[in-house]
Amino acid sequence: MASPPLHADIAPLAFLLGTWTGEGAGEYPTIAPFRYGEQVRFGHVGKPFLAYSQRTWSLDDGRPFHAESGYWRHVGDGRVELVLAHPTGVTEIQHGLLRERSLRLASVAMGLTPTAKRVDALERDIDVDGDRLAYAVRMAAVGQALTHHLAAVLVKD
Amino acid sequence: MASPPLHADIAPLAFLLGTWTGEGAGEYPTIAPFRYGEQVRFGHVGKPFLAYSQRTWSLDDGRPFHAESGYWRHVGDGRVELVLAHPTGVTEIQHGLLRERSLRLASVAMGLTPTAKRVDALERDIDVDGDRLAYAVRMAAVGQALTHHLAAVLVKD
Repeated sequence: MASPPLHADIAPLAFLLGTWTGEGAGEYPTIAPFRYGEQVRFGHVGKPFLAYSQRTWSLDDGRPFHAESGYWRHVGDGRVELVLAHPTGVTEIQHGLLRERSLRLASVAMGLTPTAKRVDALERDIDVDGDRLAYAVRMAAVGQALTHHLAAVLVKD
Repeated sequence: MASPPLHADIAPLAFLLGTWTGEGAGEYPTIAPFRYGEQVRFGHVGKPFLAYSQRTWSLDDGRPFHAESGYWRHVGDGRVELVLAHPTGVTEIQHGLLRERSLRLASVAMGLTPTAKRVDALERDIDVDGDRLAYAVRMAAVGQALTHHLAAVLVKD
């Protein structure tokens, strides 16, 4: 990433910038519980958004699990917008609020490719305390109601 | 990017893998014509998708223009799916066909954050000949019908 001055519009999100690494646990009514390693990166290029990418892997053998990439926007008064693409053929638009270093986001639109498994809604909670980032994800998918799916704790590198 | 074996499902898209750099020209009824530098990256992690990211910049001073990131899927019989996120608050789901080294894609769903400018549809043509990649993008946005928007020629690094 280049290092121009941070755009003033996203100064409230500056605490996210950097690379975060850690472990998480996943569960869902349709699958066996699992644990995973994760790395999350937030960068910027001087424009009013953060570039975001994430990948997870098996703690057993390091094989890749999930990934997602997209952009975070702060559009004023603590309102945050998130646009994401998932390699599973899903796009996600989230809207939410920033309060101090906590974010509460919920999907306002999901997109699916013709062959993607159905995902109806996602909610994301993120709480940062110094160099520690904790998140939780709830998901409504494949006919299930909104249900806890993922939780992880990451540490800034 | 890691370098595991390529997943067989995306072998037909292997010709895209790598980093492509070049220049392009943009136009649209609502803006002044412009030229730009561009770098496109296609990678893989051994799973049935390509990770994609792109950024463009001013040829005058190198300041960043656009960026987008997402994933390409080959779902059989030359059918290709593309999921993208744009920092302008737009998500894009495209579907199309691969014939030899030519791709013809059209959006099947666009997503917009509450503050995004309206984009109704995009079409993408990509033609690769050896180390040369040419593309064209048509866009329907901000009340305009589907209209030529971008064309560029990139060379594989």
